[in-house]
Amino acid sequence: MRVELLTVGDELLLGDTINGNAAWLGRRLADSGVDVTRSVVVGDETDVIIEAVTAALGRADAVITTGGLGPTYDDLTRDALAKAAGVPLVRDAGLERRLRERAAASGRELQAMAFRMAEVPEGAGLLRNSAGTAPGLRVELPGGTVYALPGVPFEMRTIVDEVVLPELAARAGLPAVARRTLRTAGIWESVVATRLAEVEAMEGVKLAYLPEPGEVKIRITAAAPDAAGRLAAAEARVRELLGPVVYGAEDETLDRVVHRLLAERSATVAVAESLTGGLIGAELTAMPGSSATFAGGMVTYATELKARLLGVPEDLLAEHGAVHPDVAAAMAAGVRDRLGAGYGLAVTGVAGPEPQDGRPVGTVYIGVAGPGNSPTVVGPRLPVPGSGPEIRAVLRRMTVVHALELLRRTLLGLDAEAGTGDAREDREDRG
Amino acid sequence: MRVELLTVGDELLLGDTINGNAAWLGRRLADSGVDVTRSVVVGDETDVIIEAVTAALGRADAVITTGGLGPTYDDLTRDALAKAAGVPLVRDAGLERRLRERAAASGRELQAMAFRMAEVPEGAGLLRNSAGTAPGLRVELPGGTVYALPGVPFEMRTIVDEVVLPELAARAGLPAVARRTLRTAGIWESVVATRLAEVEAMEGVKLAYLPEPGEVKIRITAAAPDAAGRLAAAEARVRELLGPVVYGAEDETLDRVVHRLLAERSATVAVAESLTGGLIGAELTAMPGSSATFAGGMVTYATELKARLLGVPEDLLAEHGAVHPDVAAAMAAGVRDRLGAGYGLAVTGVAGPEPQDGRPVGTVYIGVAGPGNSPTVVGPRLPVPGSGPEIRAVLRRMTVVHALELLRRTLLGLDAEAGTGDAREDREDRG
Repeated sequence: MRVELLTVGDELLLGDTINGNAAWLGRRLADSGVDVTRSVVVGDETDVIIEAVTAALGRADAVITTGGLGPTYDDLTRDALAKAAGVPLVRDAGLERRLRERAAASGRELQAMAFRMAEVPEGAGLLRNSAGTAPGLRVELPGGTVYALPGVPFEMRTIVDEVVLPELAARAGLPAVARRTLRTAGIWESVVATRLAEVEAMEGVKLAYLPEPGEVKIRITAAAPDAAGRLAAAEARVRELLGPVVYGAEDETLDRVVHRLLAERSATVAVAESLTGGLIGAELTAMPGSSATFAGGMVTYATELKARLLGVPEDLLAEHGAVHPDVAAAMAAGVRDRLGAGYGLAVTGVAGPEPQDGRPVGTVYIGVAGPGNSPTVVGPRLPVPGSGPEIRAVLRRMTVVHALELLRRTLLGLDAEAGTGDAREDREDRG
Repeated sequence: MRVELLTVGDELLLGDTINGNAAWLGRRLADSGVDVTRSVVVGDETDVIIEAVTAALGRADAVITTGGLGPTYDDLTRDALAKAAGVPLVRDAGLERRLRERAAASGRELQAMAFRMAEVPEGAGLLRNSAGTAPGLRVELPGGTVYALPGVPFEMRTIVDEVVLPELAARAGLPAVARRTLRTAGIWESVVATRLAEVEAMEGVKLAYLPEPGEVKIRITAAAPDAAGRLAAAEARVRELLGPVVYGAEDETLDRVVHRLLAERSATVAVAESLTGGLIGAELTAMPGSSATFAGGMVTYATELKARLLGVPEDLLAEHGAVHPDVAAAMAAGVRDRLGAGYGLAVTGVAGPEPQDGRPVGTVYIGVAGPGNSPTVVGPRLPVPGSGPEIRAVLRRMTVVHALELLRRTLLGLDAEAGTGDAREDREDRG
């Protein structure tokens, strides 16, 4: 089964949007055993879309298009597919009704243009979109099948997972593949890979490592026969080999895990931030319901605010500057007490591009203060990524991850440092 | 002059890498007046690369390829181009010498594979790479010219700017086109488009609208003859019609503008955040040097912290809840005074997905308190975007933009509300 991708939109050719949909589709299809053999981007021109779809079906069994299904006159995918199939566009009564209902529910008038979204090439199949209004379309052409999906990522992904992938798998008689993603924080990709060598050698099991700042996701793919059994065995072994470095699976992000652990303990956290400027608070309030576990935060960017708002001793600041383990500890205890939270989490460090108080870029101290305990501080050695303007963004993101990971380890009663993935330490562990 | 892009690499088809090179090239070429008409990704297969290059030159005047020029055996672009041109690969003495020199300088041995990087299709031109070792290649084929560039973004960009673009411009008799992007905040796309109708009608001028949460970028493109003059006229008219809603141009983001305005006044800002959880502080500290203008912040997520940390009157909170204009005003003045900043900026609102204190999702109040002034409050009606998990993220992002925009308007002495451009009708579903 060979599939090509066709992304439609001037904004992609012009580079106003990066083609994240193609990347997601490529990964998802590859994980399911479908070969993506080419990925093409064309602009909003009917003839070009027709030509690109036809050429793709000359090489592949199916084409997945994204984009060009909206209501405006530069949304041309459905027109192109109707022409390619030699059929007219017809208005679908069910879709029209749904558009009217949604408009009525939100008390606004439907513009004439909106009804374009109710038109489909005659004979096309509708692909259920449980995440939005506009369904995807299945159009059969002489060379193969076209799956036309909306460009909105969340809707596109939902239709792929719920409709397109099962259909492709059934049609191709694909061997069942089972897949699971485990998430780790604070450990290096090379350390993970070294520890998991024996899992790589398991029959019918493949591992992929997906590094992000401060995190590594491990994707386990198991093939037939008994894909589910193989997956379970591989996952169990990965968890055994990595231990508590694995903080979650699938979409269970670190902030969600921390939120859950706090909620289970009916506890709250308060944060004191410096170099991250508010990113830790933002992360901890990203999901609904966070008010149950997040009390609030202080962003003490100016050094004197660390003393005035958080009670960090002024002589400590005078002697060592703001980037020091004891400052992180005092910030953590200070924010916990002043905001009346169960836990205090604090970061101080140098995000660059210039050194600060004589400390090099990438120096970071993270403190956590639990109920009644004296604070714990870690100082992960953050690798300074490449050069240029992304340094600051990446270091800030790494700091957020290491901070949430320290809080998680504290809530679980784990060692603060065990998972920080210093490669030398790891080699010593392994003898 | 029509150019197609060809990106080579299995990792792109598999979605392990997002195609940032294509996006950058698309923007750079468009800005220079070169039309990118198609962008194709293929895997590491010689025959497929040959076919894709040949097909592209059947439609366009030139093809720019990226990737596949490295030393390993899955780097196949140079082999494919030699075959397509019907010439052998020959070793370039200058390139070989440079490889040997670099190896000697770093004290390591050259592996046999590395010499692949010294091989070029006979007759190919070398495109100087001032950012790395491997040059780009210029190969003339029957249908047109191929510019083959390395996939390393920094090297690719350098060769494009220093060699490829000047060459394309000279060959095509460019510049035929001049472009500029203006940035607006707090105004709807449909309002912008309506106001700019007369600019759309100017001869040789095209407008494109690029909406993001809370912002609309306007890209003005002017064509020859006298593209520069037409662009200047169009830009002047756009600025006249939109007034101070235009906050910047090109890469001048709202946080940079606010930073500059504060720095010019030797002033600082402190922020009090609720639904944004720290995002405003994070935005204001994203760029280097922000400590000169950003004092710090309070994230008063729990309602009682608004009283305790910021001095919001308790009876106000008891009577109206936390989402109220007077609460935003008190937060702004409170954070300004408690952190000793020149300006206080505060937000309170409902990010969803559930209503709060009887206020619907999307209700937001933003307050700003200047030096000695009583606070100003705005309550932009944020449109609730679509459905699903992105609602919260988009509303929070919109709130950040509206807050920074209110601060900008305050610093410039503009009306707080003038540009907010309410437009219920803009809430079209998009497919």
